[in-house]
This record gives sequence, C-alpha cells and structure tokens, in this order.
Amino acid sequence: MKKLLSLLLALTLCLTLAVSISAQEATKPAKYVFFFIGDGMGGPQISATQYYLGTKENPDAAVPTPANLSFTTFQNVGLMTTYDATSFCPDSASTASSMAAGQKTLSGVINYDVNKEHTFKLVTEYAKEAGMKVGVLSSVSLDHATPAAFYAKVPSRNSYYDIAVQGMTGTTLDLLAGGGFKQPTGKAKDQRDVYEIAKENGFTFINDNEGIRALSPESGERVLIHLPDLAGSAAMQYEIDRRRLVAEGEDSISLAELTQSAINYLMNDKGFFMMVEGGKLDWSCHANDAATTIYETLAFADAVAVAKEFAEKYPEETLIVVTGDHETGGMTIGYATTWYDTYFNYLEEQDISYEDFDKLVAGMQESGATFADALKSIEEHFGLVAPDSENAANAQPGLVLTQQEMAALEAAYGLSMLPKAQRVIGKQEELLYGGYEPLTIASNHILNNKAGIAYTSYAHTGLQLPVYATGANAYLFMGSYDNTNIFDKFMAAMALTPDSN
Amino acid sequence: MKKLLSLLLALTLCLTLAVSISAQEATKPAKYVFFFIGDGMGGPQISATQYYLGTKENPDAAVPTPANLSFTTFQNVGLMTTYDATSFCPDSASTASSMAAGQKTLSGVINYDVNKEHTFKLVTEYAKEAGMKVGVLSSVSLDHATPAAFYAKVPSRNSYYDIAVQGMTGTTLDLLAGGGFKQPTGKAKDQRDVYEIAKENGFTFINDNEGIRALSPESGERVLIHLPDLAGSAAMQYEIDRRRLVAEGEDSISLAELTQSAINYLMNDKGFFMMVEGGKLDWSCHANDAATTIYETLAFADAVAVAKEFAEKYPEETLIVVTGDHETGGMTIGYATTWYDTYFNYLEEQDISYEDFDKLVAGMQESGATFADALKSIEEHFGLVAPDSENAANAQPGLVLTQQEMAALEAAYGLSMLPKAQRVIGKQEELLYGGYEPLTIASNHILNNKAGIAYTSYAHTGLQLPVYATGANAYLFMGSYDNTNIFDKFMAAMALTPDSN
Repeated sequence: MKKLLSLLLALTLCLTLAVSISAQEATKPAKYVFFFIGDGMGGPQISATQYYLGTKENPDAAVPTPANLSFTTFQNVGLMTTYDATSFCPDSASTASSMAAGQKTLSGVINYDVNKEHTFKLVTEYAKEAGMKVGVLSSVSLDHATPAAFYAKVPSRNSYYDIAVQGMTGTTLDLLAGGGFKQPTGKAKDQRDVYEIAKENGFTFINDNEGIRALSPESGERVLIHLPDLAGSAAMQYEIDRRRLVAEGEDSISLAELTQSAINYLMNDKGFFMMVEGGKLDWSCHANDAATTIYETLAFADAVAVAKEFAEKYPEETLIVVTGDHETGGMTIGYATTWYDTYFNYLEEQDISYEDFDKLVAGMQESGATFADALKSIEEHFGLVAPDSENAANAQPGLVLTQQEMAALEAAYGLSMLPKAQRVIGKQEELLYGGYEPLTIASNHILNNKAGIAYTSYAHTGLQLPVYATGANAYLFMGSYDNTNIFDKFMAAMALTPDSN
Repeated sequence: MKKLLSLLLALTLCLTLAVSISAQEATKPAKYVFFFIGDGMGGPQISATQYYLGTKENPDAAVPTPANLSFTTFQNVGLMTTYDATSFCPDSASTASSMAAGQKTLSGVINYDVNKEHTFKLVTEYAKEAGMKVGVLSSVSLDHATPAAFYAKVPSRNSYYDIAVQGMTGTTLDLLAGGGFKQPTGKAKDQRDVYEIAKENGFTFINDNEGIRALSPESGERVLIHLPDLAGSAAMQYEIDRRRLVAEGEDSISLAELTQSAINYLMNDKGFFMMVEGGKLDWSCHANDAATTIYETLAFADAVAVAKEFAEKYPEETLIVVTGDHETGGMTIGYATTWYDTYFNYLEEQDISYEDFDKLVAGMQESGATFADALKSIEEHFGLVAPDSENAANAQPGLVLTQQEMAALEAAYGLSMLPKAQRVIGKQEELLYGGYEPLTIASNHILNNKAGIAYTSYAHTGLQLPVYATGANAYLFMGSYDNTNIFDKFMAAMALTPDSN
C-alpha cells in the first residue's frame, strides 16, 4: 500500500511537471474570461472560511482540517501588492482602477491619473474592441467603486450619478447586474432618470427573479439587472441572511445564480470578459462581522464554482482569475486571550448579519428594551449565553459570557439605547465600535474572540493578497507582482495589445 | 494489482511526456538545496518589511512603494497551510516536523506521530543517505524546535538535552550552527556534557568570530558552531541591536555571514541540504515589536541573498526555498484609530529591541527611576515624545504622545516598577501586556499603532503563508498546498524516493 502511495505521489508530481510545462507553452488566447474580485478578501478571510467549513463538515475530525473552496485548488498562485498613490492602505476605487487599467492612482479616484487630468483605458474597453462581450456583476450597488472601475472614469468615486450615466451611455457594457443605483436621478434628485437613459441606449431593465433566472441572448440587446432590494441598501442580501430567509421560504437570488444567468446571456462565439464582485464581503469586514464575512466568502466561492463548471466545457479557452482588491479589517486567526486555541464551531451559532441585527437593535431602542431583553436576543442570534440565562447550564462553556464580556455588552447596550445624536463618542468608543452600532459590534467582537478570530481595524489594510488562476494562460498570474500588473496579465492572456500612447 | 499496473503505465507515459516536452525544462535534480524558514514570518511581516524599506529608501516618493526583498522576486510562489493536529494555530515543533518529514503531528512534538509512538524519517536523513552534506543553522539556540526538527526526534520539544545529544551522536549533521545549547548538561545539570559527546563524535567546536569567518572544509570532519552569546539567551543578537552595536564598533556576526561560512564549509561535489532559520523573528513577533521584527526579516533576507549569490554560480543545480513555519502575533498593516493612514517612517525612530529595552527597564526599577526618567528613555529609543518634553515643539506631530497614550504608559510604568512577584495581572493586563514587560510592550504598541501597525495576539496564528522558490525544480513549490507537502516537494526536487515502509 505504501508503494502504491509513493507511486501515486510520483505520478502526481510528474503530472504537475507536465501540466506546468504545457501550460507555459499554451499560447491560445483566453476567450472566456472571468475575473472574480472579493472586495476586502485577503488571505485571512480565505483561511477563516476554509477553517469554518472544514470544522462544520468534520466536527469530530482528529486533526482540524481546512476545507477547499472552489478556487483554493487552482494551481497558478500569485501574490499581489495593493498600495495606492495615497497610502499603503488603499481604497476600492484606486485598486480596482489599477487592476482594470494598469495604473496607480489616488484613493477615491476611478480611472483618472493622480492629477485627475487624464483618463485610463480599461481592459474591458480593449476586450470590447476585440469583439468580446463585457459583463460587470456585483453584490453591491452598480455605481460602487469596484464595478464602476470596469466601465466608468470619474475623479471622485462619490459621483454616483455620473458613473451610472457613463455606464448606460457608454459602449463598453453588454450586461450590468447587481444591487441597484444609489442616485438614479442624481444627488439632488434633479437629473434625468438613469433608467430612461438606459432604455434610450438599448438596455433592457430586469429586476424580478423570474426574469433574471430566464436570462438568455434573447433577453435584449443589452441588459441592466437589479436584484429586488430585499436588504434596503441597493445591494444584495448578506448570504447569512439570504440562507436563513430562503430556509423560511423566501425567494432570493444568490451571486452564483446571477453569475450563471450572466454566462447564459453573454455566451457568444467571440468570447466575453466578465468581472464578478463579492462586494458586501468588504462591508462585513469593515463591521468586523466574521461569520457574515465567512458566508459572503462562501457565496463568492459558489459563484466561482459556476465559472469552473463552465470551464469544464471550454477548458482551453476559459481563464478564471480570483483575488481581492485589498484586505479589510486586519482580520486574523488568533486572539490574545485565546492564545493557541481556536473554536470555529462557535461561529455556527451566529445566524444573522450585523446589518439585520442592527435592525433588531433599532427595534429595542424604540420599544425601550431592557438589558435582559437585549441579552435574550444576543443569545438567540449569536449563541452567547449570559451566566444567569436558563440555558447557561446546557450551553457550551466557552460560549457563556464572562463578567468582563457582560460589562462590555452592558456599556454597548447603554450607548445603543440612546438616540444617535445623544451618544458621546470619544477615542475609546471609536476604538471599540468604529462608528458601528455598539451593541451589534460588541456582540460580534465577543463571538469572534471566543472563536479565536480578531481584527485590528475598521478600515482597509495593506496586506499583499493571494491571486488564484486556472485555465487559458493562467500561468501568467504566478509569482509576486503589483495590482497594476493584473491589467497587463489579462491583456497578454487575451493576446490584446495596449494602445501606444 | 491491475490498479498498480495501470498506474505504472500512466507513470511511464507521463515520464515519457515530461522528458519529451523539453530537455531544458526537465530539470536536473537539485544538488545544492537551501531551505530558509522565517519563524513566525507570514505575509504581514514580509509586507511590513517591504513597506518599511521602501519608505526608508524613498522618503520623498510621490507614491509610497514597497521595496523588494531578496526573495520576494522569486517567480515560483505558493501558499501553504500550517495547522497542526492540535489547533489551527500551530507551534514550531509540529510545523517544522511537517516540513521536515511530511507528516502532521501535535503541537510540541518533534518528528513523532500523534500517538508519540513512531518516529518520522527526515528529508535531511534522505539527503545524507544520498551522499549530500547536511547543515542546520539558526539564530536561536540549536536545540530549539525548528532546527531540532531537521536532526532530532523527541515526543516533547522541551527535551533540550535529548535533542542536543541526538544531534551530536547521530549521523545526519555535518554542520550545526547558531546560538548555543540551552541545557548542555541536562535540565538538572547532572548529565554528561554535550560538548564532550560532540567531540567524541567528530565535531569540532568553534565559537569565535574569527573561526566562524574562516570556516572551510579543513575546519574539521564535522563542525558545531556557537556564536558568542552577546544577548545572554543562547541566541544571536537582534539585528536592530547588532546594527546599533556594530555602528559603535562591536564585532558581531550576522545570519548572512553565518550562511556564507556554512556554504564555504559544506560545498562539495555531491551537494548539500541546508536549513537556515531566522528564529528570533518569531520572538519579536510574540513581543509585538514591529521594528525589531522588520530588522529580523531584513537580516533573514540578507542571508537569502547570500544563497542567491551562490545560485548565480550554479544556477541549474541550486534550489532556494523561503517560507515561514506559522505567522506570529496576528500582525497587520492598518489600525483602528489611524484608519487608512500609514506612517512607516515613524518606525525608523526605534533603535532598540524589546529585549534590550527590557534591560533598561530593569535598570529603572533598580534605580527607582521616575516616570519622567522613563519618558526620557522612551523618547531616546522609540522617538515617542511627551507633550511637555523640551523636544515636543520640534518633533513630528504624530510622534507626540496623546493624553490617552500618556495614561497607558503611566499605568505600564507603575506595573514595571514593581518587583514581578508583586504585580497583579488580571485579564485586562493579560490582554494589554501578554506577559511581557509592561513599559516595553506599551511603548512598542504605541509606536506600532502610530505607524499604522497592529497585532491581535501574543501567540501564533492560523494564517496561510507565502512560499517563494527559485532554481532547480522550483516550479514544484507553486500552487496551494499543506506544509506536509514541503517534504514531498523537496524529495521530488532532489529526485529522492521515500522509503516504502
């Protein structure tokens, strides 16, 4: 048996050799190109998701083992720097611009140079010129920085209306699908309705589940898709909430389903370039909500799995690249007071995103809920049990709140029950809550820390990110490089040549 | 049997394919093999060092840019999981065993299985059997877990004397070089002196700088090298202290010089396998001392540079692999109250390791130093300026201490001035100081945070780590894999076959 194993090992190594050599010799341009961006998704988010899934799938395993995600098995791996012209901790506007156009710029700027004078030419524009179709998908609003960087050019990412109008009047997009537009009639609501502009420019607008699922080349010349706004933020629901509500019978479309529909629509014999963003992943990282981030990463990985399935049919012409734009939150696996221990099973207790729990906290404030009421809700949704709860005796001991944790929750409760205008936020509160609903983020911090997860920040960090690639010319994405090189690599993979200006 | 036959057929076909693809790609076995392990060095430590160096080299750059380290330009990049059989946050014993022998085991165990019954066979043993020379180098003591895993097998990493005796009586080692032995006559100081045992087994003992620098094949049949113990911990000095003291005229050997001497000694026409550990890197991460960690990473990168220079002479036969064993400290680039800003130039103000500053704090306690005295010392060595210091007006504003920081330092000073037995350490103090000297670690935390660096832990974390490889068969180290696969990849790279038992 051992001989068989070492033969298998030799065979595997040999295959690796053969594959890596043949990959480098493959020169056929990538025709079906998928670029998946997990906003805020660095190595820690990926590892945490692998550990969570591994723990959930094998609760009694002798050795704790991470599970694979759809993309963590891709053989071509790279490491990418993400700093921008403003800071080592960049933003999504500059980083998406760098990947879309190969240039560095300032935080907040989309596809303009650091002097805000000249625009960049985008990989999607080159793809379009070459006859490929272009699709941009996001789980957040379509005028958000990351999707915008693949079709718009504005000196400020906050110019939501301008972004939307550029998308609808430009010639780059065949499909734009995601949460919605933040300012469809402009910031002051005095501009022409962007949906009218869209229609005028040949876009068919679809925003019902049936229509999205039935998407085909016959759905229209070009399509603009908004998911029904179930979360009330012109963004998709958090996956942790979507799964809970789907289990209760609600119909809600996943990022994977949206990706499948986009493939069905964009498929054509000249190929396509499709950018798919897991955008709310970043928001949950800002809010230091580990369980929600893990479910966002799972939803994102499910979307990549759809592309993998497509690639099985067109293996020599499909390229899939998966990465993030920056890490958010300074997430790590390891906390000061849990030392070397990790308890990822605790995270399974959380069944709600910070976004939906915020709504419950708002309800508590309105109804004048007591601290005991608040603790009951925290027990229900985070699995954190007060020592005097009737469930304390049967709870996992590690999930019972310590006196220090009870005090932290009570302080947070005190602030959360005040109207926002009456809350006094000093340096200490900034450090503890980062501008989020105190009771929600305190609950998240306590559960995270008990599981062995911690954060250092409510903003983006400067970590280098892993890049995973598979398929046609995927070998180009090996090695260490900068996010600006992502543009160069896509161009080379599709055998496109940048203009010489 | 049928399966075996078809496997053999597949293997033959595959080998034929691999050989026929291209003679220049089908590489020769790696003959000169370097394995560099930065203990505790994950992606964050590498990025922070690149940012620090980039800032220092180009203080006026319009776009903040990371500098390359010797190994960050290697084209073959991998991502490695590091969990062990105990936890997602592993220790150095299990992780080094996994890389040396290809098996998972428990934290604290060196080259024994999880039941502590069977031993593993090491990559160094296979290399030795194939006629290669074997060298093990570390900046910490030679019986520490990481170096030990490349020559010893013990159920507990704390069996320092057993480890040393195994190294000196075994046949694996040609060279063992680093800090020293922790228990040369056993824990109870009642065992036979390990130096006598070493001599008896053909080791020449060298522990002077001149002897180390003059190392050659004529230095002895086998060599045991201790660096002069300048730090008083059977380990090398911290690089940040070494550089300060070298500038003052002291003679102290760097890890790079040690690596060069080891090459000079081990060079022979049958090749060598050399493991070089940057061991104190981990210690400074435990202590959340960012500047010291950055200098340890620089010293480590300098040692890799020596191997790169060697590889230029033997490009087709040299393999260099660089990685860590686990991340330590949960270090990130981004802190809650600095948000998106980073000020890596502030770290240049620190000129001392936590280890050497601890000695100054001990002196303060003995001399009954006032808080004002302490602040003067903190200003001198960390560049942190009290608002009432005579230098406050000329200091960089960001380095002037806030009232909150002053209060944190004063609380830490209060504890540090007490004899250890009198200090009351609760949960809050554990979180703040992690068992380290309060005044030192408080100073480190404040400087780190002002620069935009933060930690979540005083222990190891569960992040996946980057692997960088170059040279003969370096492509094997591409992709995502587990630390146990490092063994497989080295074996394949050297064309060695594991025993089939």
